[in-house]
Amino acid sequence: MTCVEMTPAERGQLAMVLEVCAYPKPGNVDRCHDYASTTLEHFLSSAIFVRPVFERAQAGDGALGALIKDAVRATSCHEGGNTHFGAFILLIPLISGGDIPGALRAIGRTTVDDAVAFYEAFGLTKVRMLERDELDVNRPGAAQALRERGMTLRDVMRHSSGNDMVAAEWVNGFALTRKGADLLFRCGSGRQAIVDAFLALLASEKDTFIAKEHGPEVAREVMLHAREVQEGTRTIEALDAEFIRRGINPGSLADIIIAALYVALGEGWQWE
Amino acid sequence: MTCVEMTPAERGQLAMVLEVCAYPKPGNVDRCHDYASTTLEHFLSSAIFVRPVFERAQAGDGALGALIKDAVRATSCHEGGNTHFGAFILLIPLISGGDIPGALRAIGRTTVDDAVAFYEAFGLTKVRMLERDELDVNRPGAAQALRERGMTLRDVMRHSSGNDMVAAEWVNGFALTRKGADLLFRCGSGRQAIVDAFLALLASEKDTFIAKEHGPEVAREVMLHAREVQEGTRTIEALDAEFIRRGINPGSLADIIIAALYVALGEGWQWE
Repeated sequence: MTCVEMTPAERGQLAMVLEVCAYPKPGNVDRCHDYASTTLEHFLSSAIFVRPVFERAQAGDGALGALIKDAVRATSCHEGGNTHFGAFILLIPLISGGDIPGALRAIGRTTVDDAVAFYEAFGLTKVRMLERDELDVNRPGAAQALRERGMTLRDVMRHSSGNDMVAAEWVNGFALTRKGADLLFRCGSGRQAIVDAFLALLASEKDTFIAKEHGPEVAREVMLHAREVQEGTRTIEALDAEFIRRGINPGSLADIIIAALYVALGEGWQWE
Repeated sequence: MTCVEMTPAERGQLAMVLEVCAYPKPGNVDRCHDYASTTLEHFLSSAIFVRPVFERAQAGDGALGALIKDAVRATSCHEGGNTHFGAFILLIPLISGGDIPGALRAIGRTTVDDAVAFYEAFGLTKVRMLERDELDVNRPGAAQALRERGMTLRDVMRHSSGNDMVAAEWVNGFALTRKGADLLFRCGSGRQAIVDAFLALLASEKDTFIAKEHGPEVAREVMLHAREVQEGTRTIEALDAEFIRRGINPGSLADIIIAALYVALGEGWQWE
């Protein structure tokens, strides 16, 4: 049958669906594992509810900061809390620009208004930045500080890039997103390739969400355990069970994998 | 947070997602069980890809037959085969009309052109009607026979209603859809209520898809087994395993549950 090609908005939605379904993914919500308050259905409903915002991004209707804020708002209509904030930080520029070079051009055009809207998006989530300076988003007057310094959203991401691998993508040319997409192609197709690519990133990159939540030692330990799975001295199921027990959730690498899936799908990667 | 209310199109998509995720559902694809050639991801991607057609239905842009055909086409862009044909037969009028009374008004307006488009939709799927008369959709000249008899799509559904519970909904006022929605409210909220409502339908209604595939005896046997689960003399997991082993798939009741979820969501049923 002749098939209509997926739009960038649909690629973004499918990337969100494929990531959360892939199983087993150590520590994250997947097909066979919910968090206590956030379920598979919450993640999937976010993939549905975000569609109008992705379509605006695709049409060039809206600035990146406002679109990220609208994506957070559109997906907050359930009780599962924040499901995809980090993913939206990557997907919104990618959908706006179509691909990585286009995303970087869109990022280069961000303004102080984008930065302020982004801070407002943060306020809608329960995500904490844990920064101690006056740009801490949880600090009253932070938006004023942005305006006084004339910081664009790209500047904000550079400011956070040292301890946040998602923010770093904005200033390093989506390096890990690119690496993840290449891993997907190298790992084959479908669900197993997603798991293998995720594991390869987990073994080679320190998840900054884990570092913030549990400290850098635990983040390093996670990498070593992922390598044990790759080497066959530990099963992925055992690692999943341990991460769940200890509340270890490689959330930033999940965001990176979603962006990688978006890019790979656009380059013809086979998800089936 | 102030929340935008779900649109009818989004309710239809969410109904598709919630149905396929609910677990355990004896014999059907669910969170923890794929078919050999159709996976959870195929069902979920159909829920994403159908969106433009649901939006047209919601806007009153298009006749029911053409919209059903377009929904089949939009969701055929994967290798998982037909995932939701029966569900679209119910959801397209429901989304077009908003609710059951509106759906019945839309159905009353169908024409011969709708019937012909519907036959073309059938041609896009591998679904067989197994009827032996000259209106058999698999028979060359069937569309011509429709025109000669002046049959509208509603007439076609009446013609099939005796051996197809999905078609019957068009002419009985969505009786099982209504019953399913009421069951959802009675069973509580969230995933478990979907499983319980599905089981209650399985115990009280003969699935016509099973009857066509395996004969009326097996369809009756399925009802008895579902009652055993309700009475506690058989576990739902054991029934699921037996259905999978025997290739028994209550596909028509799954379609009814999707329509029931759509209606219940519109009446404030809590999916979380």
